[in-house]
Amino acid sequence: MPYQQRIEGIPFRVRRVVKWGETDPAGIVYTARFLDYGMETLEAWFAEVVGVHWQPFNVDMKMGSPVVHASLDFFAPLAGYESFTLTLSLEHIGRSAYTTLIDAHKDDGTHCFQIKIVASIVDKSEGMKSVAIPAEFRDRMEAYQNACRTAAVGD
Amino acid sequence: MPYQQRIEGIPFRVRRVVKWGETDPAGIVYTARFLDYGMETLEAWFAEVVGVHWQPFNVDMKMGSPVVHASLDFFAPLAGYESFTLTLSLEHIGRSAYTTLIDAHKDDGTHCFQIKIVASIVDKSEGMKSVAIPAEFRDRMEAYQNACRTAAVGD
Amino acid sequence: MPYQQRIEGIPFRVRRVVKWGETDPAGIVYTARFLDYGMETLEAWFAEVVGVHWQPFNVDMKMGSPVVHASLDFFAPLAGYESFTLTLSLEHIGRSAYTTLIDAHKDDGTHCFQIKIVASIVDKSEGMKSVAIPAEFRDRMEAYQNACRTAAVGD
Amino acid sequence: MPYQQRIEGIPFRVRRVVKWGETDPAGIVYTARFLDYGMETLEAWFAEVVGVHWQPFNVDMKMGSPVVHASLDFFAPLAGYESFTLTLSLEHIGRSAYTTLIDAHKDDGTHCFQIKIVASIVDKSEGMKSVAIPAEFRDRMEAYQNACRTAAVGD
Repeated sequence: MPYQQRIEGIPFRVRRVVKWGETDPAGIVYTARFLDYGMETLEAWFAEVVGVHWQPFNVDMKMGSPVVHASLDFFAPLAGYESFTLTLSLEHIGRSAYTTLIDAHKDDGTHCFQIKIVASIVDKSEGMKSVAIPAEFRDRMEAYQNACRTAAVGD
Repeated sequence: MPYQQRIEGIPFRVRRVVKWGETDPAGIVYTARFLDYGMETLEAWFAEVVGVHWQPFNVDMKMGSPVVHASLDFFAPLAGYESFTLTLSLEHIGRSAYTTLIDAHKDDGTHCFQIKIVASIVDKSEGMKSVAIPAEFRDRMEAYQNACRTAAVGD
Repeated sequence: MPYQQRIEGIPFRVRRVVKWGETDPAGIVYTARFLDYGMETLEAWFAEVVGVHWQPFNVDMKMGSPVVHASLDFFAPLAGYESFTLTLSLEHIGRSAYTTLIDAHKDDGTHCFQIKIVASIVDKSEGMKSVAIPAEFRDRMEAYQNACRTAAVGD
Repeated sequence: MPYQQRIEGIPFRVRRVVKWGETDPAGIVYTARFLDYGMETLEAWFAEVVGVHWQPFNVDMKMGSPVVHASLDFFAPLAGYESFTLTLSLEHIGRSAYTTLIDAHKDDGTHCFQIKIVASIVDKSEGMKSVAIPAEFRDRMEAYQNACRTAAVGD
C-alpha cells in the first residue's frame, strides 16, 4: 500500500493514504490538514521539478519560496484509510511569483478538493525581498509546463 | 503570558503566541499552520457565539459545519514566540452557509494575514445534506453581526 | 523518491522522507513529530498485519486500540529531506496489551531513534473496557512474531 | 474560556482546552498530540523560568535543548472541548541534562496523563556537543525547584 508515493510520469502526481491522525470525530479529514496535503505536494514537486529541496534552498542558498496566497475548495470528504491522488499543474509563471493548482481525486474519479497556491521567490540575504525567479529554475518550470501540455495532448 | 486567550468584548478576538513547533527552518510559521490558526479561531467563536462546540454539535446533535472554501492571504511573516491577535468578523449569513473573515495583527499593528472561511450547516442524519441554519443559531449569528457594527461605530 | 512507502517483506518496514513542515528552526525534526512517525507506522502495521484499519476497527467494530504507554529515545537528529527507514518489531503479546518497538535508521546505518508503544484492545460497547485480544488478531500477531524470528535467522 | 493560559503562581501550570483538530474519530485526543502538549508546556516553562525562549536560544545564542528521552503514560482519555491543567515539576538537574515531569489533570481531579521529558543543553557552535548547563540557567532551575518545594510544604 503506497502511503505517499510519487506516481511516475507527467504530470506530477502523488498517491496518498489518509492517516487516522488526520481525521476528526466526524470521521473525515480535518479541514486544516488539507493545506498540509497541498504544501507537501508543492514541496515534493519543487524538489524534483525545480530541482532543489526547500531545506538547502533556505539554509544553504539563503533563498526561500514563501506562499503569498492559498485557496482551498472542498468538494467531497475523505475518510481514514481512503486513498487519493494529488496532481500538480503549474498554472502561471510570473516574474517572481508562480501559481500552482493541486487537484485531489479518489480512485473512482471523485474530485475531492482543489488547492491553489501562489508562492514567490525571495532572497533572504536582502531581507526577504522578492526577486526574479532564477533562470535555471524558470527553465525547469517552463519545461514542466510544456511537458504537461504535451502529455495532455497525448491522452 | 497569554498563550491563546479570548480577549473580552466584541468583536471576537483571541491573543496567540507562536509556538516553536509551528515554525520551520526559515524561522517563521510554516504555511500550513495558518489554517490551523484560522480553524481554531472559528471553533472557539462557534462555541461561544453560536453557542455549541463542534464536539456535541457533531456527536450528539448529528449535525456538522464543514468548510466548503477557505482562502488565505499572507502579508507579513511571524516568528517563534511572537504574539498576535486574531479577530473574527462574520461577513455574510446565507441560507445554509456563512462566511467569516479572520484577521491577524501584531501588537504594533502589522497586518500579518487574513483568512476567509466559508462553512455550511449539514444534517448528518440525512447524509451530509446541507440544511438551513437553525433559527436559534441564525439569531445568534445576526446578533453578533449587529454587535460588531455597534462596536465599530462606537470606536 | 518514496515519501512514505512500505518496503516489501518481513519485518515490517516503511521508508520515509522528512518533510519541511516537520522540521523546526534548528533545522531538524521537531521532537513532537517523532510520536507521529511512531503512530503512523503502528497504524500501517496494524492495518496490514493485524488485518484491520483503525477506522473500521473503531467505527464499525466498536473496538479500539488505545495506547497506554509510549517512550522515545533519541540518538541522532534528522534534517529536512533526509530519508530513513522505520522497522516495527512486536516485542510482547499479552492478554489485552501488546508491545511494539519501532526503530529508525538512516541509509548509512545511523540509529536515529527508538519508540516503544504499548497498546491494549478495548471494547467500546462496554465502555472502553480492556478485553482479551480477539483470537484471529492474536493468531496474526503470533504469525508476525514467528516470521520475524525466521527472517532474522535467515539473515 | 482560557484556551491555553498560564495559571499564576508556583508550580508552573497551564490551563488548556482540547481542540477539535486534536481529536480523532474515536472522539478523543489522538495519541501523538499528547507529546505536543508536553513540548508546548516545556517550551513555555523554559521561556518563563529558565528565562529565554527556544527561538533566540537557538538562533541568536547558537545553543539548543534537544530532548534525549520522553515517556508518556496514559490514564484517562480527553474529549474535544474538555479542559485540563498541565503542571510541570523539575525532577532532576544534572550536569548537562535535566528531567521534567508534566502531569495533566481534569478539573474533577482525574489524572489524565504524565509525560517525562529528559533534555540536555548543547552548544551548536561546537556541533551539537552537550555542555554543562550555563550557571545563570542552573540558578533559575534550582530556584524553581526550591520554590516548588516551599509551595508544596505550604499546601
